[in-house]
Amino acid sequence: MNKFVAEFLGTGFLFCAVVGSGIMGEQLSTANDSLTLLVNTLATVFALYFLISVFQAFSAHFNPVVSFIFYLKGEITGKTFLTFSFFQILGAITGVILANYMFELDPVCFSQKEREGTNIFVSEIFATFGLLLVILLSSKDRVASVVAAYIGGAYWFTSSTSFANPAGAIGRSFSNTFAGINPDDVALFCLAQFIGALLAYFLYRFCFAGNSITSSE
Amino acid sequence: MNKFVAEFLGTGFLFCAVVGSGIMGEQLSTANDSLTLLVNTLATVFALYFLISVFQAFSAHFNPVVSFIFYLKGEITGKTFLTFSFFQILGAITGVILANYMFELDPVCFSQKEREGTNIFVSEIFATFGLLLVILLSSKDRVASVVAAYIGGAYWFTSSTSFANPAGAIGRSFSNTFAGINPDDVALFCLAQFIGALLAYFLYRFCFAGNSITSSE
Amino acid sequence: MNKFVAEFLGTGFLFCAVVGSGIMGEQLSTANDSLTLLVNTLATVFALYFLISVFQAFSAHFNPVVSFIFYLKGEITGKTFLTFSFFQILGAITGVILANYMFELDPVCFSQKEREGTNIFVSEIFATFGLLLVILLSSKDRVASVVAAYIGGAYWFTSSTSFANPAGAIGRSFSNTFAGINPDDVALFCLAQFIGALLAYFLYRFCFAGNSITSSE
Amino acid sequence: MNKFVAEFLGTGFLFCAVVGSGIMGEQLSTANDSLTLLVNTLATVFALYFLISVFQAFSAHFNPVVSFIFYLKGEITGKTFLTFSFFQILGAITGVILANYMFELDPVCFSQKEREGTNIFVSEIFATFGLLLVILLSSKDRVASVVAAYIGGAYWFTSSTSFANPAGAIGRSFSNTFAGINPDDVALFCLAQFIGALLAYFLYRFCFAGNSITSSE
Repeated sequence: MNKFVAEFLGTGFLFCAVVGSGIMGEQLSTANDSLTLLVNTLATVFALYFLISVFQAFSAHFNPVVSFIFYLKGEITGKTFLTFSFFQILGAITGVILANYMFELDPVCFSQKEREGTNIFVSEIFATFGLLLVILLSSKDRVASVVAAYIGGAYWFTSSTSFANPAGAIGRSFSNTFAGINPDDVALFCLAQFIGALLAYFLYRFCFAGNSITSSE
Repeated sequence: MNKFVAEFLGTGFLFCAVVGSGIMGEQLSTANDSLTLLVNTLATVFALYFLISVFQAFSAHFNPVVSFIFYLKGEITGKTFLTFSFFQILGAITGVILANYMFELDPVCFSQKEREGTNIFVSEIFATFGLLLVILLSSKDRVASVVAAYIGGAYWFTSSTSFANPAGAIGRSFSNTFAGINPDDVALFCLAQFIGALLAYFLYRFCFAGNSITSSE
Repeated sequence: MNKFVAEFLGTGFLFCAVVGSGIMGEQLSTANDSLTLLVNTLATVFALYFLISVFQAFSAHFNPVVSFIFYLKGEITGKTFLTFSFFQILGAITGVILANYMFELDPVCFSQKEREGTNIFVSEIFATFGLLLVILLSSKDRVASVVAAYIGGAYWFTSSTSFANPAGAIGRSFSNTFAGINPDDVALFCLAQFIGALLAYFLYRFCFAGNSITSSE
Repeated sequence: MNKFVAEFLGTGFLFCAVVGSGIMGEQLSTANDSLTLLVNTLATVFALYFLISVFQAFSAHFNPVVSFIFYLKGEITGKTFLTFSFFQILGAITGVILANYMFELDPVCFSQKEREGTNIFVSEIFATFGLLLVILLSSKDRVASVVAAYIGGAYWFTSSTSFANPAGAIGRSFSNTFAGINPDDVALFCLAQFIGALLAYFLYRFCFAGNSITSSE
């Protein structure tokens, strides 16, 4: 049972951090998107590091495509994958609503930020491909710092700012702020994320699995 | 005895860092609060990391609500909790006065920065809830980096900028600068912090204690 | 075989990160090169950390002069050095083209950014000397964080911004953006890099090899 | 013998990083001292981390007051302390001259930046007190990250920006740039540094030595 609480709390804190730091950055900066994305990046990196470190002993996917790949690897059942996804999405939405509330915005205000175009779609495939490859090849000891570092880089080197997480894409549509996404664009983001995750899994299977001296579990 | 010195020195350095870096940021920046909060964050993250790493072998709570929860867990006596709190508050005030002095301000100048409102109160409950949950679930080996990362994120994803420490709230009222807080607002901050800490402790007790493969002590 | 895939993927991700974060920084910043170099630095540091951590179990040179020095040390054959170099250069070019594409630029647009002068040449010798010395003296356990930290510093303390990598110099000539380099200047950069690497290797051989309690392999 | 090379190279790289990143920050920023001190901080943190990690197996004081305290502790002889100090000062000056050269400044241009006043003097005592306390209490395994974090914080929470190093104070007088110091102010800085170091050593001796489960050596 505490696995579900861990997935709910972890994903909740994570997207509270992603959206809240974006709001704080916007409220403080004087029209400088670069500085806002920088503080958004640092808050997300810090959040990923402490959340994975702390909840790893229970469960620390915080991401339906991560749970999906562990289901394909046979480490969790299909039912666990679905239950995890439910708690992850619930957590992400709750975290975003809490962020809106703390910063005196309407608890729910759907985003009007359009994130569209073929290059954004490819960027999101690439971002999720990288995230899953990194997770599949990380040692358990380093996964917190490695995943945090990956996202810290990928916020800047992909044009979609690396959502790489369907629960995050859904949750971020609930806030019309810096880190938001128009609800109309969420479905394509999720599609891109599953494609990227599958590509990483296949590459891992055919090229790296078995030879690695480290283990993802 | 060196436990008390450690709590005094550690809390002193910590709030000298919090307040001093805010002053430095204000004196250098050209009216950009975002950049000032960023350097304030980094200085605090660095300070927490080196202070916990260095004083952990003696005692490294630096925070009355942390000592209170370890008292509830039965790891320290009520008298130790009170003595620790005394040295923590004394340390925080001393550190803030030293910061004021180093930057050529009046050693004591009470803050006029209002930090009020229901959403700030809820934010402070949430911030302290997160901090204590993270401390209770951290392995001893990682607690320095995990706590530093938590505060580094929470400065940005909570609207109260995560004081999460009654000694800090009291100390920060002694400086009318970036990181200050109006003395009138300190009591409600402390109340919110104890509520948040108790919520974390109850969640830990009912959900995570016993199952964790890591230990908070 | 997976060694070659690791070198290709790692170098590809690395220079996608270097170039992509430069483009993102330029597109977001309002004419502030300092902030752009800062985000460029952080993205590169994060990328080096996760890439070396993850691919270290296979192969993680990502740099022909690094492979060359390991060839001189007798750890890889001349043929492996040449094959690694091929995949590293191919990876760097692919990563840069992908970055251009994701940010809606022409996939290939050669850089017009001149990087010339004796002091730049000396800077690049010094930068590569430092990188190789650091790699030769690092323990395997710390090489990811040490190399990331080295480059994070060297981006700022050398006037050439520490390319220190022939594959990177070639790849970065394919993007007319912040991190680019005019193709005419690539050859001298590569020469400087080999000189710096050899100086580090000779210093290591005559002064530190044998006495080190750590091992580079 | 490689101990002396390590002290020379390490101190050289360190103050090349301190001064060079200050020059780069000044050349890029548009009159924003806060951003320049931020990049100066990050470059110094990265440099301390990789230099201590890499040269620790040989010798990694890079600072005459650090060597002096280890002499008082009986870990090195008086002659070694003097030889180390010589190589540290030579390294710092060489590193600063190299930084000046790489950025196309006159190799030697003495600083006109005044750093005076009682509060600056007290700040420098406090800064060095903290640095030495941290070094004396660090485990060997963590000393690189702990010292880097200490300086990263102290650059911001002391009004003297924590020189905390006589070799550094001398070296930094050779560059009339951001990180420089007027040669006339160097002697008082060195005095403050020895006072701070002695205070830390006495506190360590009377309060923490013997009880620590960690060891500074």
